[in-house]
Amino acid sequence: MKIGIIGAGSVGGALGRGWARAGHEVTFGVRDTSDPKVQKLVAETGARAASVAEAASGAEVVALATPWGATQDAVKSAGGLAGKVVFDCTNPLAPNLSGLTHGFDTSAAEQVASWAPQARVVKIFNTTGANNMANPDYSGVAATMFYCGNDVEAKATAGKLAADLGFDPVDAGNLEQARLLEPLALLWIRLAYAQGLGREIAFKLMRR
Amino acid sequence: MKIGIIGAGSVGGALGRGWARAGHEVTFGVRDTSDPKVQKLVAETGARAASVAEAASGAEVVALATPWGATQDAVKSAGGLAGKVVFDCTNPLAPNLSGLTHGFDTSAAEQVASWAPQARVVKIFNTTGANNMANPDYSGVAATMFYCGNDVEAKATAGKLAADLGFDPVDAGNLEQARLLEPLALLWIRLAYAQGLGREIAFKLMRR
Repeated sequence: MKIGIIGAGSVGGALGRGWARAGHEVTFGVRDTSDPKVQKLVAETGARAASVAEAASGAEVVALATPWGATQDAVKSAGGLAGKVVFDCTNPLAPNLSGLTHGFDTSAAEQVASWAPQARVVKIFNTTGANNMANPDYSGVAATMFYCGNDVEAKATAGKLAADLGFDPVDAGNLEQARLLEPLALLWIRLAYAQGLGREIAFKLMRR
Repeated sequence: MKIGIIGAGSVGGALGRGWARAGHEVTFGVRDTSDPKVQKLVAETGARAASVAEAASGAEVVALATPWGATQDAVKSAGGLAGKVVFDCTNPLAPNLSGLTHGFDTSAAEQVASWAPQARVVKIFNTTGANNMANPDYSGVAATMFYCGNDVEAKATAGKLAADLGFDPVDAGNLEQARLLEPLALLWIRLAYAQGLGREIAFKLMRR
């Protein structure tokens, strides 16, 4: 698939490496394609780097791997995203990880959908660290990647692209369920940092 | 330990059976000790049944295994719970499981703590079904039981009593983290029911 990844930080980088390795055509959408970090990613993955608008317009799937505060601008720069499958990988983290800025009766994902009303938004790749996106294998057990959204086809694409990275994909329902998946992300962060468990932890939904 | 369990429904019953089996002295605090369901539990477990006030006053640990709507009354009937370790096993579910009635900048656990300000409240036994409390084993892997609270000793007791049931206990931080554990409970419920995965699912925090 043709995938545009907006943002080339730790999450965008991990997703892009994984999908390029799985044979997808990846373009990183960034503000500055000459940034040495971006150039390094491009050299390592065989992916391209382009403007946000270009990365989005040529893609079937656009992954928003931006800091929450940069996400509304990224959607605007991406040119509306009508009809595209859009992965919202963000978390609306308050300063100092003190909490979330959105939640309970809304979510970052629902905000994104309001900014891009014709996009097919899926919340995914927000509930674990970039280290797990690079390698979701825990001694032969695949970490779970929860996702949610209102478009059945877009969710099928999301599940497949999560499996391509080695995740066990689990559909958590409609986009409103992002109100549960964003707190789950903060739980991962709190366990890793505040509770001192470190980043080599991952959620698994076990089945009996 | 002397444990009072307020409520003898599916969650209270599973906790009481498990702790009685582990050698703890369990008393179910109920409105009507002559209720046949309660009598059956008592006969099966060797536990006692008593009034809510009596079950609480004789216990070191009091588990609130009540429907959310009955919890404030249960705390009142329990007589204040000063100094006791109190497990809040509730979830503030909105009618028809449409969401939570509390969250984001508060939680059921924080409400309970406000009703029983001298109790040592731990949020625990809310993020999975009674079936998993009865048996948290998934082919040799123990399901995780997350808990949080502000009293270190009370949390150590909570972790031990979760392990006594066969859970892998994970400390998620201070009581405010209930704002994350209550949405996690709703995620379990939504996956089990709305997403059709059924109740034989459980969260595991994997470590690498």
